[in-house]
Amino acid sequence: MDLLTKTLKEIKKIDYSLAETTQKRLDNLTKPRGSLGRLEELAKQIVEITKKENPKITNKVIFTMAGDHGVVEEGVSAYPQEVTPQMVYNFLNGGAGINVLAKHVGARVIVVDMGVASEIQNPKSKIQNFKAKKVAFGTKNMAKGPAMSRDEAIRAIEAGIEVFEEELENGVDIAGTGDMGIGNTTPSSAITSVITRSSVKDVTGRGTGIDDKSLLNKIDTIEKAINLNKPDPKDAIDVVSKVGGFEIAGLAGLILGAASKRIPIIIDGFISGAAALIAYQLEPKVKDYMIAAHSSVERGHRFILDYIGLKPIFYLDLRLGEGTGTALAMSVIDASIKILNEMATFQSASVSEKIEGKIVER
Amino acid sequence: MDLLTKTLKEIKKIDYSLAETTQKRLDNLTKPRGSLGRLEELAKQIVEITKKENPKITNKVIFTMAGDHGVVEEGVSAYPQEVTPQMVYNFLNGGAGINVLAKHVGARVIVVDMGVASEIQNPKSKIQNFKAKKVAFGTKNMAKGPAMSRDEAIRAIEAGIEVFEEELENGVDIAGTGDMGIGNTTPSSAITSVITRSSVKDVTGRGTGIDDKSLLNKIDTIEKAINLNKPDPKDAIDVVSKVGGFEIAGLAGLILGAASKRIPIIIDGFISGAAALIAYQLEPKVKDYMIAAHSSVERGHRFILDYIGLKPIFYLDLRLGEGTGTALAMSVIDASIKILNEMATFQSASVSEKIEGKIVER
Repeated sequence: MDLLTKTLKEIKKIDYSLAETTQKRLDNLTKPRGSLGRLEELAKQIVEITKKENPKITNKVIFTMAGDHGVVEEGVSAYPQEVTPQMVYNFLNGGAGINVLAKHVGARVIVVDMGVASEIQNPKSKIQNFKAKKVAFGTKNMAKGPAMSRDEAIRAIEAGIEVFEEELENGVDIAGTGDMGIGNTTPSSAITSVITRSSVKDVTGRGTGIDDKSLLNKIDTIEKAINLNKPDPKDAIDVVSKVGGFEIAGLAGLILGAASKRIPIIIDGFISGAAALIAYQLEPKVKDYMIAAHSSVERGHRFILDYIGLKPIFYLDLRLGEGTGTALAMSVIDASIKILNEMATFQSASVSEKIEGKIVER
Repeated sequence: MDLLTKTLKEIKKIDYSLAETTQKRLDNLTKPRGSLGRLEELAKQIVEITKKENPKITNKVIFTMAGDHGVVEEGVSAYPQEVTPQMVYNFLNGGAGINVLAKHVGARVIVVDMGVASEIQNPKSKIQNFKAKKVAFGTKNMAKGPAMSRDEAIRAIEAGIEVFEEELENGVDIAGTGDMGIGNTTPSSAITSVITRSSVKDVTGRGTGIDDKSLLNKIDTIEKAINLNKPDPKDAIDVVSKVGGFEIAGLAGLILGAASKRIPIIIDGFISGAAALIAYQLEPKVKDYMIAAHSSVERGHRFILDYIGLKPIFYLDLRLGEGTGTALAMSVIDASIKILNEMATFQSASVSEKIEGKIVER
């Protein structure tokens, strides 16, 4: 059996009964019932995913996957393609936004070359945090034909699974997605439009910051790509191969890989969301393993969140990608688990409790 | 000059020009302009407040102030008054939600007895984190007369200023509010109704979790207290003395004290919000020193945020108080400052930059 099929089969339905027993434990902590709101929801979800009563979040790992996009020749991005490898080096040297935020929350960043259009010369000293999984030197221009072959799409997804499984050996208690790729809001909008059956206009935004004229061109380009390639919304591999990208396919694999090993997977912003759509179409059970980090400024993102049914942790008007929202979310999830594991109970702290409308002294 | 008058005079208008120079620095970091959204806004605000180009957030301090409320005899709360001191001991023993979250973000918690209705026997080992500033053994029942005298209100506000100034000697880079007091959503709703000129019904919620019948009784009680005491909305001290609480007045003082020393002050939820209203009425310039941690489930909170003009960092459906939202917000603010201080620039990382629509290679 090939790796993708095997991984999809390994994704099991969540045991919802664990949420109930965990809620009972949360209700026994010194606070009014439910008063920690979404922190309680997050703690329950982590218990359900990991099947551990007292999960520990020691190893936080953000996977930042990079790829280039042939469609940039249509003028869809504010930045030139050379910025993709420049930013990969920035990640490896620790100077990017994701490095600062990952350090802040105690996470490590694994940088993956899924399909950057130039050779990445990895400095030896940083080699542990870099994974070379290049499927090709960038996708082809989807406005002129499929972005990649079906075979390449499967290889990219499986590379994402492999990256996760390799890293699992170093310890992963919670995983998160991140992306880098000049032009990658364009395939992400295309995927979102096709899978959520929304108009291209509704799901296409300004990416790194294009002007009105370029935005119209971007919309036209995406419509052209969809009309030309006719991706089948019911076949996620067809979608990601025709109008996707290597880092998007890789992230879809990463998400599936994490879920198959019962590791919670945090979904960053719009590009990661497009990857989540692909993963979700391949296996809807993956939804319960996902946690949406934030609601992006990029307008297509809310269509993704609504379609899958994910509620973001943050509304911070972020639109950087890289896994920056993931990093911040990891800290909140960690906090939710510490609430579950470290707070005193009514009994241990001798605090009067309310049970079925009556006050019980402790 | 008395301490309150002196403190109010020391609160200076923020120098907005610092935001501009800070934005220029943020725009020089390796990310599309503005792509870190509210993190960039927060970093700018901290620079403006502290007047430091590269502020460091080493000492994070949460002040959790406790007080009791005579109005509980009207049956406005789901829990009995004994829970206030029980929770104070829980804070001192490190078992409460605020302890867990403060530890998670590297903050220290200062517990203040502003007016608990019983004697707090502070265990010696924890004495550094406890401040005894009891103005009285709980407020009087505001449904039968003023909650406290005007003199007591001023003493409580000044005690809050003192607490901040004492703690400043141990180092405070960022301060935050927290509260504990069975029944304290009742005075908070009263203050919110009076100052924001909103109906009591609109700003009154279920607190720790009362049922429909108790909610109606709570609304009636608040209306009765306002009609009886006739607090003057233009005189914040009159408002907090007639329908407030000692911990609320103390937190108002804390907020003013922090602003007078140019220290950013994070406002937790609804009770802290009522304190922020009092501080804001006393000196509107204090607004720029405030950061709202989150949007509480307690329905009156949004009226406070709208009235002052504060945008919360989190929407996590919290309603615990204690400073729990403050703790989480501190971590996000810390992250925003690290972005400013630690990220690589386009030049240092050799990443091509976009200036006035043109790509500049680095």
